[in-house]
Amino acid sequence: MHIGIVGGGQLGRMIILSGLPLGMRFTVLDPSENCPCAHLGAELVVAALDDAEAIERLGRAVDVLTYEIEHINVDALSALEQDGRRVRPSGETLAVVQDKYEQRRLLHEAGLPGPRFAAIDELDDEALRGFGMPAVQKLRRGGYDGRGVALLAGPESPRLRGASLLEERVAVEKELALVTARDASGVCSSFDVCELEFDPQNNICTRVIAPARVEADTAREAERLGEAAAAAVGCVGICATELFLTTEGRLLINELAPRPHNSGHWTIEGAETGQFEQHLRAVSGLPLGSPRRRGAAVMRNILAEPGSNGAAVVRGLTETLAIPGAHVHLYGKAEARSRRKMGHVTVTAEHLDEALRRAEGIALRIEGERDG
Amino acid sequence: MHIGIVGGGQLGRMIILSGLPLGMRFTVLDPSENCPCAHLGAELVVAALDDAEAIERLGRAVDVLTYEIEHINVDALSALEQDGRRVRPSGETLAVVQDKYEQRRLLHEAGLPGPRFAAIDELDDEALRGFGMPAVQKLRRGGYDGRGVALLAGPESPRLRGASLLEERVAVEKELALVTARDASGVCSSFDVCELEFDPQNNICTRVIAPARVEADTAREAERLGEAAAAAVGCVGICATELFLTTEGRLLINELAPRPHNSGHWTIEGAETGQFEQHLRAVSGLPLGSPRRRGAAVMRNILAEPGSNGAAVVRGLTETLAIPGAHVHLYGKAEARSRRKMGHVTVTAEHLDEALRRAEGIALRIEGERDG
Repeated sequence: MHIGIVGGGQLGRMIILSGLPLGMRFTVLDPSENCPCAHLGAELVVAALDDAEAIERLGRAVDVLTYEIEHINVDALSALEQDGRRVRPSGETLAVVQDKYEQRRLLHEAGLPGPRFAAIDELDDEALRGFGMPAVQKLRRGGYDGRGVALLAGPESPRLRGASLLEERVAVEKELALVTARDASGVCSSFDVCELEFDPQNNICTRVIAPARVEADTAREAERLGEAAAAAVGCVGICATELFLTTEGRLLINELAPRPHNSGHWTIEGAETGQFEQHLRAVSGLPLGSPRRRGAAVMRNILAEPGSNGAAVVRGLTETLAIPGAHVHLYGKAEARSRRKMGHVTVTAEHLDEALRRAEGIALRIEGERDG
Repeated sequence: MHIGIVGGGQLGRMIILSGLPLGMRFTVLDPSENCPCAHLGAELVVAALDDAEAIERLGRAVDVLTYEIEHINVDALSALEQDGRRVRPSGETLAVVQDKYEQRRLLHEAGLPGPRFAAIDELDDEALRGFGMPAVQKLRRGGYDGRGVALLAGPESPRLRGASLLEERVAVEKELALVTARDASGVCSSFDVCELEFDPQNNICTRVIAPARVEADTAREAERLGEAAAAAVGCVGICATELFLTTEGRLLINELAPRPHNSGHWTIEGAETGQFEQHLRAVSGLPLGSPRRRGAAVMRNILAEPGSNGAAVVRGLTETLAIPGAHVHLYGKAEARSRRKMGHVTVTAEHLDEALRRAEGIALRIEGERDG
């Protein structure tokens, strides 16, 4: 089985590492010849993520084409599918997800709960007053890891320029995620709902806790919503749905990603099948694996230290590896740039309190060689 | 950290796959450019395993040199060590283990129990009668996976030619293995003792069961013996000790291997740290990980079907992946040759009876394209 992956970042890297033991072969398309998917034995096609011709050529050379990032040329995916090639998740799924307003509209039409929302071409004072504040402005396209999002607390808050989705600011008790795998026949297999913590400064996920510390009813409802969302966008492969648990106890869908997701990294060691292998099973038509949780897991993202800019230097590896149940994943990024995702550490334990305690000891830091 | 590995087989492959997430870089020495360690991004030095010059050159280019097979040039290792290079396990450890008689003698001198034994240069009738039958003849050097071993049931049994170790044939109730990691300061960290099953026809391990179904006292004694054996040969890294549990309830050391071992494959998914990562931690001076077992595991070796000879064809992958908790590891060997180790499948479950039941469903078979 020959798998093509558009995008050569850490998600592609972990897809490859989980597919090699299954005898799979990979070709990756990425603009950088030193991307995290390089030096793993996968063939590398150096091309831009919007290079339709290169994507189509890749799609014709492999058994299945998938992607690990949403910001790619979707017309190329559709052209391949019209030609009978296997693209999973489909171009249609990606097209909807790429546009945050279309994504929201489709989920709304499917009856799935989310914040009140509106599409805005030009965000002037009148439109903002009409919608109400506080609000969240999200660029319809191109946002990622907190970029392309602005919190509009009042009329003076700086706004983003460009076609946007406007959403009411909801009072959030907890952020949750439901990572599910959906196969070509529409059957979903979901990992336990987990809890996400974010750096409030820049909205980057810092920690994921599995299982989420929520009532059983809430967990069941999160699973129902995540699976319904994956079905609504017709995703084949991993689909990750981020949810808000509001202070009033309601679950609202924040957004989804039709690919392996940061909120599912804990499954590599924390579930009977990891999300990356599960994605490969789903897109290549193999049976889905058991998503059963094995004990508890806490995942910490390792971001380059603020202000980093230079060759990556790893510190605190020894202390981190001394933690029982600690699993270190470095993404092979040569350059440390401020707050770039450089790796993650998952700590497993039989019970969550123990995993949380152990995770406090994670000392891994990555900075640039020439910083400061 | 740059690691050199002498030998590019499946053990090297799994060492590399477990070291990539830790940010390690690998160079492998193997006679075949299509060995299982090829196509993983590791640099490959194509040379014979007894090529002292190539091994020395590799040892000077890396931070630590290790090996995944015993049949390599040991003088090159010693020369590197005299030059202050890090070789782990040491050349001295390997020299003792390579010679089955020396290995046995050293364990005996350390007070560790084993079958009655003798060194034999030429196995004539008189020597055999003097030792007693049934006996087991093992070539002192070069045996592997059942090769170089003869069961001498009586005076008519075919014998091997060459310098041999002769051992009494003990009545075995179960074969066990204790896989331990020993760090440079002599501290051992052992995985739970496991149970080994062999094909009686050719003495190749077929199945490993963890934990072993033995009394707690026996498990504790196996751990004590395995750790003492690792210390006796001065191993730094993984050391696997195979043991006989006799029908009389005694534990005897069969033999040991100073490297990751088939009896430890179950730890990849079945323990908090897998043996391959643990080996890397031990040889590179990183803290040893927790060896705690996670539930139960049953590992099945996937040998090429008897009579296979041709390009490998994988069958039964879909059925095998449908088993909950099944983890498939294919070694990337292009050619299927009769009874060659092509991969393994580990099935995990919370309890052993469930893991054993699930493992019954493993349908993976590998045969040659042009067979029959």
